[in-house]
Amino acid sequence: MAERKRTEIAELGQFGLIERLTRDFTPRNATTVSGPGDDAALIAAPDDERLTVLSTDMMLEGVDFDLTYFPLKHLGYKVVTRGISDILAMNALPEQITVALGISSKLPVEALEDFYEGVRFACLESGVDLAGGDTTASVTGLAIAVTATGSVLREAVARRSGARLNDLICITGNLGAAYMGLHLLERERRVLGDVENPEPQFKGYEYLLEKYLKPRPRRDVIESLAAEKLVPTSMIDISDGLSSDLLQICRSSKCGARIYLERIPIARQTTALAEELHSDPVVAALHGGEDHELLFTVPVTMRERIEAIGGIDIIGHITAPETGAMLVTPDGGEIELRAQGFVKKRA
Amino acid sequence: MAERKRTEIAELGQFGLIERLTRDFTPRNATTVSGPGDDAALIAAPDDERLTVLSTDMMLEGVDFDLTYFPLKHLGYKVVTRGISDILAMNALPEQITVALGISSKLPVEALEDFYEGVRFACLESGVDLAGGDTTASVTGLAIAVTATGSVLREAVARRSGARLNDLICITGNLGAAYMGLHLLERERRVLGDVENPEPQFKGYEYLLEKYLKPRPRRDVIESLAAEKLVPTSMIDISDGLSSDLLQICRSSKCGARIYLERIPIARQTTALAEELHSDPVVAALHGGEDHELLFTVPVTMRERIEAIGGIDIIGHITAPETGAMLVTPDGGEIELRAQGFVKKRA
Repeated sequence: MAERKRTEIAELGQFGLIERLTRDFTPRNATTVSGPGDDAALIAAPDDERLTVLSTDMMLEGVDFDLTYFPLKHLGYKVVTRGISDILAMNALPEQITVALGISSKLPVEALEDFYEGVRFACLESGVDLAGGDTTASVTGLAIAVTATGSVLREAVARRSGARLNDLICITGNLGAAYMGLHLLERERRVLGDVENPEPQFKGYEYLLEKYLKPRPRRDVIESLAAEKLVPTSMIDISDGLSSDLLQICRSSKCGARIYLERIPIARQTTALAEELHSDPVVAALHGGEDHELLFTVPVTMRERIEAIGGIDIIGHITAPETGAMLVTPDGGEIELRAQGFVKKRA
Repeated sequence: MAERKRTEIAELGQFGLIERLTRDFTPRNATTVSGPGDDAALIAAPDDERLTVLSTDMMLEGVDFDLTYFPLKHLGYKVVTRGISDILAMNALPEQITVALGISSKLPVEALEDFYEGVRFACLESGVDLAGGDTTASVTGLAIAVTATGSVLREAVARRSGARLNDLICITGNLGAAYMGLHLLERERRVLGDVENPEPQFKGYEYLLEKYLKPRPRRDVIESLAAEKLVPTSMIDISDGLSSDLLQICRSSKCGARIYLERIPIARQTTALAEELHSDPVVAALHGGEDHELLFTVPVTMRERIEAIGGIDIIGHITAPETGAMLVTPDGGEIELRAQGFVKKRA
């Protein structure tokens, strides 16, 4: 591999750094009035019928990601997905993001350029503008705060609190793949940690790696629902695992839920790696997190229209609050769904 | 001192924690449609004549603050000031903030309640609503990301780039006090580090401590300018020091500047402590930072109207770009203004 140029951050200074990192971004949304380079971004108001949606996420090295196996380009992509997913989960379309970084001076400018290349690629793919950038020094590790904004028609807002009795519980894509991708990376690091020029064995599991390192935000689903004039009664993005996130809906909507084990969508590669590691793919789906798929509820009358969209599985239904939130096994047994604790697994 | 109850974060879990920390917040702005407790906050659009303003700031323990002498209640107050100041610096009024925290599990819930009490007090004082909260685990130290939003009339936006030849350079309040407050705290820590029951000597310097630990955002100035129908041609908040921040205006506006040393507003306590420490109060004013005062320019025809507002000093004027940005000493000498490097001092 050719040796790459290494520019120290101090050579550019803070202004020069932000300018260099953000120069390749071109705003595309009409609401983005001005982007990075001032005290704050300026965003035009959506029309009266729409609300602005706002969310900030923080990701810390050593907790939310491990740079020893997380390429910075992918990390840049993934933080945008995380920010956007919260906007999508309100049934809104994302429009702007800002990225604030705490950076160790040990990182060369080129590493940050990799990170921003991932940010830029994700922005392009999702039709989002970078509207602001801030950097501060960090003495510990990389710290990332992504703020995402978007807009939604007032009558189309999908809160966590709107699920009603008998609503269908729907899930996009499949679950547990990101978690198994993380396990694969951690296994290879353990095995190859002391080997020079390691050759990790990822063959057959490329999909799992992509779901972990470069998860796509499900803007397509929000657009499909809008095209079909389907407004979910409640919605959340799967960031902490199906179990935790469904419990959030139950808690906010004051309801119970039944989901059926055999209906939970799990990818073939997820099952294959789980078997190889002697673990249970359902556990990965329930508690893995980081999938960034959408979990939502719709009235039971919408079953056919949801099925017609494709790529969405109906995994259960909303029940009365006193019945609790349960996973129903194929033999009819019920297992209580549980949330995870405060400390996130590295992901 | 009575022993205080210590609740572990794990006892509450992440949902319970956010709920407990944010329960005492009541939205006051009509644009705050819904606050914490969902994937994202919902904000009503301002009218067509106004733009939304958005900014995210990150603050890290060990770089931006030191918890050994920064009480959490004050820190909560100060992070709100930092966020709001960026909104004010666009000549906008702040309306919402979101706070995302990376928290070590070593911190008890009561410490976080102190932090949020400071946030709440600052929100009340500044008429701002807490619209969102997020927590993640941290293995290093406390990490804080504050996003602030607000709105501004389209024709009243004050960018960094609007300063024009001969414009007057104005500054609110006084400079260098926050920096001297930090020095005072660091001196007491050095002196009293090994003493049991230390009794720090702050008498006569209370104002410096307040400017460092609890700086007020200058919403009053933005309101006064609006009341007088005065629109600055450019504006920035003093976060990195007068020198650095004026250079940002010069860079964005493609202009030079002359500021006069004897016109720089410096508080009596700032001068007194600087003398005691054998340092130069002008250096504190030029490079100290963290003052969160506003630096702005207005056409020269507005001199009398600016002076009539009170509490604003005219310290110089904008010059042609080729003349550079200079500090003029009382004897007529010129010293080139310089920006600071990337690594911030602890503040």
